[in-house]
Amino acid sequence: MTWIVKTTQFDLDTCGSFSVVNITEQVRDFVRSSGVGEGQALVFYKHTTGAVLVGEHEAGIIADWQDMFEQISPLNRPYLHHFKAVDFNGYAHLRSALLTVSVTIPVVGGDLALGTYQDILVIDDQSDPANRKVIVQVMGL
Amino acid sequence: MTWIVKTTQFDLDTCGSFSVVNITEQVRDFVRSSGVGEGQALVFYKHTTGAVLVGEHEAGIIADWQDMFEQISPLNRPYLHHFKAVDFNGYAHLRSALLTVSVTIPVVGGDLALGTYQDILVIDDQSDPANRKVIVQVMGL
Amino acid sequence: MTWIVKTTQFDLDTCGSFSVVNITEQVRDFVRSSGVGEGQALVFYKHTTGAVLVGEHEAGIIADWQDMFEQISPLNRPYLHHFKAVDFNGYAHLRSALLTVSVTIPVVGGDLALGTYQDILVIDDQSDPANRKVIVQVMGL
Repeated sequence: MTWIVKTTQFDLDTCGSFSVVNITEQVRDFVRSSGVGEGQALVFYKHTTGAVLVGEHEAGIIADWQDMFEQISPLNRPYLHHFKAVDFNGYAHLRSALLTVSVTIPVVGGDLALGTYQDILVIDDQSDPANRKVIVQVMGL
Repeated sequence: MTWIVKTTQFDLDTCGSFSVVNITEQVRDFVRSSGVGEGQALVFYKHTTGAVLVGEHEAGIIADWQDMFEQISPLNRPYLHHFKAVDFNGYAHLRSALLTVSVTIPVVGGDLALGTYQDILVIDDQSDPANRKVIVQVMGL
Repeated sequence: MTWIVKTTQFDLDTCGSFSVVNITEQVRDFVRSSGVGEGQALVFYKHTTGAVLVGEHEAGIIADWQDMFEQISPLNRPYLHHFKAVDFNGYAHLRSALLTVSVTIPVVGGDLALGTYQDILVIDDQSDPANRKVIVQVMGL
């Protein structure tokens, strides 16, 4: 029995504007090939205009999330960030804070211990298409 | 000094409808019996209609959380999820995303390093009573 | 190669009222001196009226976050918590739940693997100035 830590980085080309990328299978492949039987998988989004979310990957739910955020943090409000910075993505910084950029999933029996309806979703809400980096790190025995 | 990882699963029968179950003592017992002196306890809710939350277990606060979510994501909105799926829990998928299904708590001196008012709460917001699985995993030295 | 776990606690004197304290450099120093090359840094806020957030430390964004929370969970609502407890910080318990008290950041190459615009921010939203404890724990190889 050896303790293992393995790290990788995914490069995702997203369309921004609340793009949802389901990375469950990629994370699962990495976990399965890591040699870790029991431990944790950390998924970390390296930007400030999106999030990592464990939830159900269903088109209706995704549209409902967008509707909710359009109520809480609409695209076209004159955010103070716009006056202080060079970009127009104030809404995305609000949504990223309400969601989170870091999620840890248990690894059991050499596999992700996700529930039946749980997927690992990267939400990218930048105002334009962008290349996004997500770190995945598996640690355990 | 040996590195340890120990995993268990709690089965909770909840009433749904924003049921709050305080699992602090169960998690604490597991941490204390794990043999880990310094490390981390991961608490992971295996569903998409609820959350794990570290917060104060006080009846007024719980009612205030419900009021807030009834503003943000009311029970009776015609969510798109309802037209695409066979269930009527669209609100719960919104709340689960705003909260989170995964929380990590430091273990120090063989015990949970929680603050005075912090409890580990499972919130289940399914539309009906349900059996819910929560994974608790302790890792460390 | 030795497995390491190192824990420290930061004491922060904050002004409450949505104080934002940027602890990135302090966490980075702790990570660099820990001897961990590859692993994870856990940042855990030990209170129920604030949060830890990985986001951009920019004055406009901070003001936008405050505006958003003043919409969702205004300071002056007659929260039920106020009738059941001895304090008047109901809004802060709502915001703490929407954010989170626990964030894990990957450590790669002996350093925090943060993105260009990511900082580690402690938000303290108590109604009065307060001393706040934040646990930082580094674990890995």
